[in-house]
Amino acid sequence: MNSRSYVPDVCDITHLHPARVAELRAALIGADDVNGLAETFKALGDPTRVRILDALSHGELCVCDLAALVRMSESAVSHQLRVLRNLRIVKPRRDGRMVFYALDDRHIITLFRQGLRHVQENSGQRVQRRAR
Amino acid sequence: MNSRSYVPDVCDITHLHPARVAELRAALIGADDVNGLAETFKALGDPTRVRILDALSHGELCVCDLAALVRMSESAVSHQLRVLRNLRIVKPRRDGRMVFYALDDRHIITLFRQGLRHVQENSGQRVQRRAR
Repeated sequence: MNSRSYVPDVCDITHLHPARVAELRAALIGADDVNGLAETFKALGDPTRVRILDALSHGELCVCDLAALVRMSESAVSHQLRVLRNLRIVKPRRDGRMVFYALDDRHIITLFRQGLRHVQENSGQRVQRRAR
Repeated sequence: MNSRSYVPDVCDITHLHPARVAELRAALIGADDVNGLAETFKALGDPTRVRILDALSHGELCVCDLAALVRMSESAVSHQLRVLRNLRIVKPRRDGRMVFYALDDRHIITLFRQGLRHVQENSGQRVQRRAR
């Protein structure tokens, strides 16, 4: 059990607010967006792909530099890039005989940075609790 | 194959930039952050949990309203909330006999919204391509 004060998972009484539920239901995103988001997050839920995203968050890189950076073979990195590219998380750019990859859009960069801040703040809180 | 012009996955020549790789390697995040991020994204990579996040992105909700909103049993919603709570993606608040859940911090809200915009822009681009 963590150090937060105990809060049960469910309400002791069932106290539905039908008007609020109906209002919110109309505002919820559709099934295509739900599935698209789940696919995107699932693709990012892998340490190797997180490392590739981290590297590309500093700017575009050619595949061979990216492979050297994350200490993987070019073929292993290419496999992961294909997964990310199919979901438009990264995009390729050909320059002569080189292929460069970058994060596909600014939303991916923001998403990555916000996730990182969330994780770093949580680990900071864990360290503070251990020190008490 | 998608409609983007074909770009091979790897460079035709190996043309490493060791200085750039060394500089970037020093800037990469550590293993704990990599694993924390992968765990967070993995937890979000599930359509049911995306629907819960979507609902909570509009504000806190009691468990029974949340269950009614996503049309699931309270016990099924509670199970998903426990997964999200363990990663501090959601947080509970007890008020008398009710338990309310909210997204844990502003980073999660931003992360969710950026992911959604990414997905919606991509689906918009797919529709435009189909219409051509």
